[in-house]
Amino acid sequence: MTETDQLVSLGEIEEAAARIAGVVRRTPLLPASWGRPEAPLFLKAESLQLNGAFKARGATNAVLLLTEDERGRGVITHSSGNHAQAVARAARDAGVAATIVMPRHSPRVKLLATQALGAKVVLVDVSERAAEAERLRARTDAVFLSPFDDDRVIAGQGTVGLEIAADLPDVATVFVPVSGGGLISGVAAAVKARCPDVRVVGVEPELAGDLAEGFARGERVVWEPEQTSRTIADGLRVTGVGERNWRHIAALVDEVVTVTEEQIKDAVRRIVLDSKLVAEPSGAVAAAGYLAHPDVCGRGPAAVIVSGGNVEPSTLADILSA
Amino acid sequence: MTETDQLVSLGEIEEAAARIAGVVRRTPLLPASWGRPEAPLFLKAESLQLNGAFKARGATNAVLLLTEDERGRGVITHSSGNHAQAVARAARDAGVAATIVMPRHSPRVKLLATQALGAKVVLVDVSERAAEAERLRARTDAVFLSPFDDDRVIAGQGTVGLEIAADLPDVATVFVPVSGGGLISGVAAAVKARCPDVRVVGVEPELAGDLAEGFARGERVVWEPEQTSRTIADGLRVTGVGERNWRHIAALVDEVVTVTEEQIKDAVRRIVLDSKLVAEPSGAVAAAGYLAHPDVCGRGPAAVIVSGGNVEPSTLADILSA
Repeated sequence: MTETDQLVSLGEIEEAAARIAGVVRRTPLLPASWGRPEAPLFLKAESLQLNGAFKARGATNAVLLLTEDERGRGVITHSSGNHAQAVARAARDAGVAATIVMPRHSPRVKLLATQALGAKVVLVDVSERAAEAERLRARTDAVFLSPFDDDRVIAGQGTVGLEIAADLPDVATVFVPVSGGGLISGVAAAVKARCPDVRVVGVEPELAGDLAEGFARGERVVWEPEQTSRTIADGLRVTGVGERNWRHIAALVDEVVTVTEEQIKDAVRRIVLDSKLVAEPSGAVAAAGYLAHPDVCGRGPAAVIVSGGNVEPSTLADILSA
Repeated sequence: MTETDQLVSLGEIEEAAARIAGVVRRTPLLPASWGRPEAPLFLKAESLQLNGAFKARGATNAVLLLTEDERGRGVITHSSGNHAQAVARAARDAGVAATIVMPRHSPRVKLLATQALGAKVVLVDVSERAAEAERLRARTDAVFLSPFDDDRVIAGQGTVGLEIAADLPDVATVFVPVSGGGLISGVAAAVKARCPDVRVVGVEPELAGDLAEGFARGERVVWEPEQTSRTIADGLRVTGVGERNWRHIAALVDEVVTVTEEQIKDAVRRIVLDSKLVAEPSGAVAAAGYLAHPDVCGRGPAAVIVSGGNVEPSTLADILSA
């Protein structure tokens, strides 16, 4: 098997797009007034997606691809919040039982929303979430749906890339926030196939910059949760990208950059005040990368993925008051 | 002349749509999760319009309709903010000088944005703005562009209605915020022509409810600025709808309702936290009407116009913290 054979294909992403079309929303790509003249800025508003984050795409695709036997066993996953809601909704709509392992300190807004969608929520310390999910999976025989390290999930997230390529065919650079790597894997696979000259840039919080370190060294690096949990970007605290995600990133991504906490908060303010969209801190990380790293941004239109908008009111109020 | 001859026609609105298409944005109509089952809720996100408010539509249409002579004389208007920015931008793009009379206590964000667009800003007490604009107009021979009482402006704002009718042909009720009446005049003319069974509901802050009083009495009523300036919805403090606007409203609008200050703030929170869009208080008034008045909302899909998103960071932070 060659390296490319191990990557999600354009065809799989196109099939995912058709599969989830009746469920997830096609989100707008909005021109922003605060870009640089040489790189006009467009925001892919996944904050306006079902449940306020891109995660609905991958989760819906994965749940719709379950076999009859798997549907009967139910699904289990772990997530800091947005994937949790996405799996809960997709499972509910498909009549499948869902168990979600969430970190004890997840934003309350994400926790309540997941429960409201009918999922069983199990709270654990952040460092225990993968182990607890595996323990429950083994006990219940439920199907584990990785938030990122799963071809069905990657294909679903890749539909964001298809929409960017359709709406902005001459896009020169796409900035994508990175945590486990599901979004950037799918988006890179889609846009590199549709727009061969496009550059794909991954952006991480400096405080959770394990992919940036690994990308520079040419090997997958995994930080400890004690490190990654320091960032305000609660959706990007996953420790290390997945194995499948690393393969996609190594093959397809052009650059990985990091941004500071202040740059993330500044980007939230720009998105809220100048583009009138609500972004959670994780959702503003790609925009922070665009603002902080003009050097890695090619000339020509830049698309920045605003990956989610599920922010605590008090967090947003604090950022706006600063 | 019959009464209908005095109203802006569907044809004029369609012409406006074609005229302004290359300048203003076609905004998304976004499904919202917090509607009632019998009246699914859709938000027309004019907060995502150029300069963060629907005003770009009417101002652009009016400026593009200026004669060569009028262009040379420049334009003048008064506005609490969003029309100011819209005229400033349209004039700048057309190479026409613009003078804007603004209330001294306009939100700073709107004042600075208007100046940044190259307009000359004159600050006066809110009660003086119309008189000062007329004084300056007489002195300079500039063309006065009413923020609402102008067929070119009404036709431009009506393009919002065309887009709602195109995206949601079975819309049953449209909720529109009312100040001077430019938006509701145009929207009612458009949607009543395209969807004859649709109900159009105007919504005002209770503290600036002069149209509600006048609509109930069947005559145009104008409150004093000291009354209307009490509402947090700074874009809706105009005293009385215009003469042209009254004719449109009397002929086309089905209901006018009011909402309290608390209902407006609650609606801001719903739009921000549940739909991930930034709304200024004025921009949330129509949504507040939908939430507070299920009785006036027909069965079937409801479209609510989120008319703008230009809110002071501190105001938004306060509303989110409450």
